[in-house]
Amino acid sequence: MTRSLHLAVSAYGVGGPGQHGLWKDPRVPKNASIDIQHYIRQAQIAEQALFDAFFIVDSQFITPDYPSHYLNRLEPLTLLSAVATHTSRIGLVATASSTYNSPFNLARRFASLDLISQGRAAWNVVTSFDTGTSRNYGLDEHLDYATRYGRALEAVQVVRGLWDSYEDDAFADPERFLDATKLHTLNHHGEHFDVAGPLNISRSPQGQPVIFQAGVSEEGRNLAAQVAEGIYAPGGSLTEAQAYFQDIKRRAAALGRDPEHVLIFTGASPVVASTDEAAHRRSREIYDEDNDFDRKLGFLGRSFGAYDFSQHDLDAPFPDVAHLSEKGGRTSGAAIVERAASEGLTLRQVVDTLTSYQPSPFTGDPSTVADAIEHWFTAEAADGLNLRFRALEDLERFAADVVPLLQQRGLFRKEYEHETLRGHLGLPIPENRYAL
Amino acid sequence: MTRSLHLAVSAYGVGGPGQHGLWKDPRVPKNASIDIQHYIRQAQIAEQALFDAFFIVDSQFITPDYPSHYLNRLEPLTLLSAVATHTSRIGLVATASSTYNSPFNLARRFASLDLISQGRAAWNVVTSFDTGTSRNYGLDEHLDYATRYGRALEAVQVVRGLWDSYEDDAFADPERFLDATKLHTLNHHGEHFDVAGPLNISRSPQGQPVIFQAGVSEEGRNLAAQVAEGIYAPGGSLTEAQAYFQDIKRRAAALGRDPEHVLIFTGASPVVASTDEAAHRRSREIYDEDNDFDRKLGFLGRSFGAYDFSQHDLDAPFPDVAHLSEKGGRTSGAAIVERAASEGLTLRQVVDTLTSYQPSPFTGDPSTVADAIEHWFTAEAADGLNLRFRALEDLERFAADVVPLLQQRGLFRKEYEHETLRGHLGLPIPENRYAL
Repeated sequence: MTRSLHLAVSAYGVGGPGQHGLWKDPRVPKNASIDIQHYIRQAQIAEQALFDAFFIVDSQFITPDYPSHYLNRLEPLTLLSAVATHTSRIGLVATASSTYNSPFNLARRFASLDLISQGRAAWNVVTSFDTGTSRNYGLDEHLDYATRYGRALEAVQVVRGLWDSYEDDAFADPERFLDATKLHTLNHHGEHFDVAGPLNISRSPQGQPVIFQAGVSEEGRNLAAQVAEGIYAPGGSLTEAQAYFQDIKRRAAALGRDPEHVLIFTGASPVVASTDEAAHRRSREIYDEDNDFDRKLGFLGRSFGAYDFSQHDLDAPFPDVAHLSEKGGRTSGAAIVERAASEGLTLRQVVDTLTSYQPSPFTGDPSTVADAIEHWFTAEAADGLNLRFRALEDLERFAADVVPLLQQRGLFRKEYEHETLRGHLGLPIPENRYAL
Repeated sequence: MTRSLHLAVSAYGVGGPGQHGLWKDPRVPKNASIDIQHYIRQAQIAEQALFDAFFIVDSQFITPDYPSHYLNRLEPLTLLSAVATHTSRIGLVATASSTYNSPFNLARRFASLDLISQGRAAWNVVTSFDTGTSRNYGLDEHLDYATRYGRALEAVQVVRGLWDSYEDDAFADPERFLDATKLHTLNHHGEHFDVAGPLNISRSPQGQPVIFQAGVSEEGRNLAAQVAEGIYAPGGSLTEAQAYFQDIKRRAAALGRDPEHVLIFTGASPVVASTDEAAHRRSREIYDEDNDFDRKLGFLGRSFGAYDFSQHDLDAPFPDVAHLSEKGGRTSGAAIVERAASEGLTLRQVVDTLTSYQPSPFTGDPSTVADAIEHWFTAEAADGLNLRFRALEDLERFAADVVPLLQQRGLFRKEYEHETLRGHLGLPIPENRYAL
């Protein structure tokens, strides 16, 4: 089978991580993250450009230093249900925590979105790691690392089981409302959950919502290899992305899965302009706009369970917070501690180094950006990209100038060939486990 | 202040309790309960008729005998988010259990719906009572009665606290994204919940979603008097409704609340035809269509924790299930047991008696129905009605033929005078608890 490129767009409203200055951009309304019309418009532009999916990240804890989009945003499932009825083809990926939602509620809400969208829903399964979040859900400490990944895996298994409660022809008989022999009770009894079922909602045209995940740590990669059908990958250099790509595909294959049914979407923030030079100039401008030290310092705490770094001397050695990253099992925190120690960095240097200027590999004129995308795709660093833009106009420009080049090169579809997200991604419709 | 009549419509898709035969009605598609267009259309008709609110009931447990709408339905919050962007004035009331949702998640999802709808959301707070439901959430037995009402009250208090996380002008300063002094942490520590906050979403034009409730039992009525701003009342005879109305208003006043800010919406299923005689003929026809003994027997179990009555001899005395209704604290179950004992009824007689033919008090030609509504309103049996229709056409007929009569009599608005649900209901915008 020929591989084909997949494109998603991730909507961050008024500015996610690394976009601290975005709220000052006159093109981006201060309330973009809570304005449903902002999301609908973005999804419609992406759909006109034949994108596979519209992606909504999430988090459930804030401090005032968090990026603007985190502070005041719509909840992903309500958001995407509204978007669903104003689009007809693009996939809708909602992030939801397996740590602080019960599988029955998750199964129901995603199944509902899947029916409202007629088979375009996906669940991006995340685990919640910080103490700040756990305190919003009645726990003083977050769940430990193994527990939350074990719980995530079991949650996905339970949710998938519930999604099969009705066989597809359970309501087909014109003589009776329901053929009760086609309604199935899960009766799950596991380590983390006991869930009887059945679910009170039937399957959509794509059978089950697609499962996305974003595994970076060892446990996260294993979870991805076990259950993910789409992966929101961290990016980094081409070599790092290739290594990640190979690792995930190998793990999936080792578990008996078809690696083509585990699609790697690498996160990317393209900067497109009329010339390469103008794009790099714009890229540097953006960096300077976003370079708010205090907010970056505040956000650094996120890798250490919402730790408050402002209590430390900026020019003293990086404080001893290794235990906080270990407890949270945050790969990013552990990497920061290691780098600070090996290079002998101060707190200020850590913040500056982590956020030093590095243009996106997808910076340039339309043809340069198309080249880079083609290269990442053919070099097996990515099956697709999960794109982040600053303003609607930047998405529009990418759609108008870059997408046609990808189409001309035979990399990207020229029209939608399917009605469902599974269709776009080349994923099979999961057989109902109870059907003969 | 002059009272004014309020109208809501409750959407049951292909048939709720007492509508067992509805799926055979050629006007009602078999998939009505999972078709978002069916709901959007209904909400739009109700909005054109200037209704106050569009109401979605809910439940999380089924057996194959349950009414058609229960078996396969969309989840209320995803459903209403989709409806929100296709309407502009009508209120949107979603039912959600305080028993099996965490307050932080509830607060977020309703705040999100409230922003998506620009101030038209309401939460109908229910408690979940049956063992079948509890088994979908990891518990073998449901919470006992006092626990679930104590939990419901505390959940509403926590949710309202979280809704005030941001003062209304927190994002007003053009020089900075957020004024951090206007973001507030709840730090709730109570009997049932520990929730720190803050919530990551700001208030809507109506300040906070409206709180609905449906209290019948002693504890339910107390909860309603304490926190409800709208009540979905059980109906019954005019005298019963008046007694309920007076009781709730008195309880609310005793707690220092303005009784006009606790609005009683009585459930009603009007049958309108061109003559009173035709309406009564149609009403009887509907009863005969719905008279499916086996499904009514199955549904009877709902008042006793999803108990399976089919294991009993239909013509033997009503089985001893008093302990099941007591455990569940179901007022309806207790009333059934009492009646069966006092009248010496068999199981079959209980089913037949409970569902004996009784036309709705709102049956007749348009003028008769308007008379009845006026009478219930002026006799203080109701502040409004929560109407249930069989098909869209029945709602359309009510809108075309009955609403104008209510308007001519000065009972019902001739145009929307407000933008929000609180506005329609004459409820004040709750002051933010942190604002000076």
